[in-house]
Amino acid sequence: MTTTQEQPINELLLAAKKASTMLSGLHAEQRHSTIESMATMIEQRTDEILNANREDLDRAAQLLEKGELSKSMLDRLNLDNFKIRGIIDGVRQVAGLPDPVGSISLARELDDGLKLYRVSSPIGVIAVVFESRPDVLPQIASLAIRSSNVAILKGGKEARRTNTVLFGCLQEALGETGLPPQSLILLHGREDIETLLKADGLVDLIIPRGSNDLVRYIQDNTRIPVLGHADGLCHMYVHEDADIEMATRLVVDAKVQYPAACNSIETLLVDATIAGAFLPLVADALCRKNVDLRLDQRSFEIISPSQSSVRHAEIADWTTEYSDLVISVKVVDSIVQAIDHINQFGSHHTDCIVTADADVYESFFRSVNSAGVYWNASTRFADGYRYGFGAEVGISTGKLHPRGPVGLEGLVTYKYKLVGKGHVVSDYLGPSAKRFSHRDIDM
Amino acid sequence: MTTTQEQPINELLLAAKKASTMLSGLHAEQRHSTIESMATMIEQRTDEILNANREDLDRAAQLLEKGELSKSMLDRLNLDNFKIRGIIDGVRQVAGLPDPVGSISLARELDDGLKLYRVSSPIGVIAVVFESRPDVLPQIASLAIRSSNVAILKGGKEARRTNTVLFGCLQEALGETGLPPQSLILLHGREDIETLLKADGLVDLIIPRGSNDLVRYIQDNTRIPVLGHADGLCHMYVHEDADIEMATRLVVDAKVQYPAACNSIETLLVDATIAGAFLPLVADALCRKNVDLRLDQRSFEIISPSQSSVRHAEIADWTTEYSDLVISVKVVDSIVQAIDHINQFGSHHTDCIVTADADVYESFFRSVNSAGVYWNASTRFADGYRYGFGAEVGISTGKLHPRGPVGLEGLVTYKYKLVGKGHVVSDYLGPSAKRFSHRDIDM
Repeated sequence: MTTTQEQPINELLLAAKKASTMLSGLHAEQRHSTIESMATMIEQRTDEILNANREDLDRAAQLLEKGELSKSMLDRLNLDNFKIRGIIDGVRQVAGLPDPVGSISLARELDDGLKLYRVSSPIGVIAVVFESRPDVLPQIASLAIRSSNVAILKGGKEARRTNTVLFGCLQEALGETGLPPQSLILLHGREDIETLLKADGLVDLIIPRGSNDLVRYIQDNTRIPVLGHADGLCHMYVHEDADIEMATRLVVDAKVQYPAACNSIETLLVDATIAGAFLPLVADALCRKNVDLRLDQRSFEIISPSQSSVRHAEIADWTTEYSDLVISVKVVDSIVQAIDHINQFGSHHTDCIVTADADVYESFFRSVNSAGVYWNASTRFADGYRYGFGAEVGISTGKLHPRGPVGLEGLVTYKYKLVGKGHVVSDYLGPSAKRFSHRDIDM
Repeated sequence: MTTTQEQPINELLLAAKKASTMLSGLHAEQRHSTIESMATMIEQRTDEILNANREDLDRAAQLLEKGELSKSMLDRLNLDNFKIRGIIDGVRQVAGLPDPVGSISLARELDDGLKLYRVSSPIGVIAVVFESRPDVLPQIASLAIRSSNVAILKGGKEARRTNTVLFGCLQEALGETGLPPQSLILLHGREDIETLLKADGLVDLIIPRGSNDLVRYIQDNTRIPVLGHADGLCHMYVHEDADIEMATRLVVDAKVQYPAACNSIETLLVDATIAGAFLPLVADALCRKNVDLRLDQRSFEIISPSQSSVRHAEIADWTTEYSDLVISVKVVDSIVQAIDHINQFGSHHTDCIVTADADVYESFFRSVNSAGVYWNASTRFADGYRYGFGAEVGISTGKLHPRGPVGLEGLVTYKYKLVGKGHVVSDYLGPSAKRFSHRDIDM
């Protein structure tokens, strides 16, 4: 098994880079059977995984008592037969996804016998830093191998025993199907993160899967590209001609259904024209779901302040991800003001407008610079599974590719293939220069 | 005119962000006529531009005498009627390119009445740091506006007068076609770079166009994504069944035709089987073009060391971008050794194999992790113009998108559009959950 216990991490990273070259030379069928074999191994060793998980849980329960671990960490650590079934199904689903490597997105003849292609290709070495949840390990490992990438998996020490057994299953699958063992590397130590962050040239992409603090720390301390989001500050804007009943249903779903999710809304923006009719209704619906309201002056004047769960918003409310049953509310005079608020205070994750007017939506869509810009749909749909991407690697709030929910497609990049017959550039220069044809051809 | 002389840079950056929201709301036709108008303005004010350029050149000549400016800087600063014609044609070409904003790359029904689209969209605010060459200014400005992005243009002080007049032409075009003046911002001061590098949240992408040192400095000192390459360390590998005459022609073109270009080769790798026949030939051809050879022990034994331009390679030679008439040569025992050398020492720019065997090329293509992986063609083809991308923003050697020569397409990102009819996530959860259809639909 490839872990820090046996080899210094720098040697492991060099071996990972070497393995990534070998891996990129393999055909899709071989990678596909590795994933199938991963699922089988986890299936066969389910009891062993559950036993290891029980040991981790026992230890975590002690830490919980001492206040060194949170209840939610403990919940996410917990595996049972049902969850293991979900893990196995998830891995098999990844095996069933179309091969993301080798697809052609541009094919062009530059001149007679000189052809250019843009071909999807693996990124190389991907490091994933995750906390608590052991189910992340087989999920990411299967996505990485499916896309011909080496994955360095840094789990939390609270899940060490579970991760070690799960990782053993994955290693067996690599061995059985002839993939290099360093295609997957498991690390446990907090100190290993520092080494990973400095490993530019060896690690090509870092994906943090954990708390906002973890993501922000990683973003601030590495030159390696980071795929992830520190904040999920989503908005719903209710336009003047919105269907009030629909808007209420959407606000309640987007706030209440799972408030800790990054795609839940934190701020409700309401057009002044509709505020008098809409705000009392939505406030009532939210209060019945135990949601605290933080109101700007104008919405405060409309909503009865007699309720204890209502108070004035402060400036910090517009930039706070509550991750809880709390929502801030602001009345705006126009769509322009709503867009400015969202672009200024939002985290470019997912924002929604409720309106009956298609042109209004189009202008909202064009001007809001977020990964998801929705029309009459809950922001909670922003998720790789719901988008039909299969398993999700993470959600990116960066402006560049990959953006939004990232599935298997986000784990490939591209290379340009140029096929010639001895073509040289000097023939295309000077007074008797040959001309390029630049003719698109069949892919 | 929007320059530092009139407003502090922080205010300018905030205004730029605001302008980017306005710009993203505009239709393609309006942006198109702005670009046409830019070309007309430059045409009309050609004499004024040339006069300003002459003043810059006079001052630069004085700096050259004092040794404070290089000859190549002076050459790149120089404009004449012919070059201005080229600038105008370039801007008109950008106007003629298809609109990069609003194209759909994914369309999927998630359920009845719930449709997901992935739509190409502007990035936001792009900062370009360039040196000396004033022709970069209208080129980048036109590409940015064409793709609905705000451009902050930081030119060199040596080109201050020329850039100011050129920028005046662009500002006139913005004004005439109703675009916000802060859609383009010109900066001159070296100290402004520091402010730009710290402006994450306001600047979304930085494109350095200049020396390797400039690029590396910018990459090392910002959290903002950087599009560019510090090194161009390209290889040509001559496989055992290569056509020796073709290989010689390719090596000479890729090394000699323009040695200062980033897509010129620095290292020649030769299969041991063919080295005895090929090396004397290629060495002779290179020496006739005044190329110095840095040879590993095995190639040294084959090539006559009597020639003065030949010496032993040192370890540093494998990582040196000569940008000059110098090439390092190494004999390898196999394609695997060649691939390992390229992946270890290369800069992931462009690498080529010369071989008659298609399967050998395929395995080289899969395993070499570079933006361009070529077969029997000079690495010098790695260029946006030659690829048919129109004007080039730069070449990226990063592993992620955009990669390789970057044209207009590299200045857009995407957003997800989700169009519903009041759809909420809670309907898709629990025992009576609705199911997603995930059916691809017409774009």
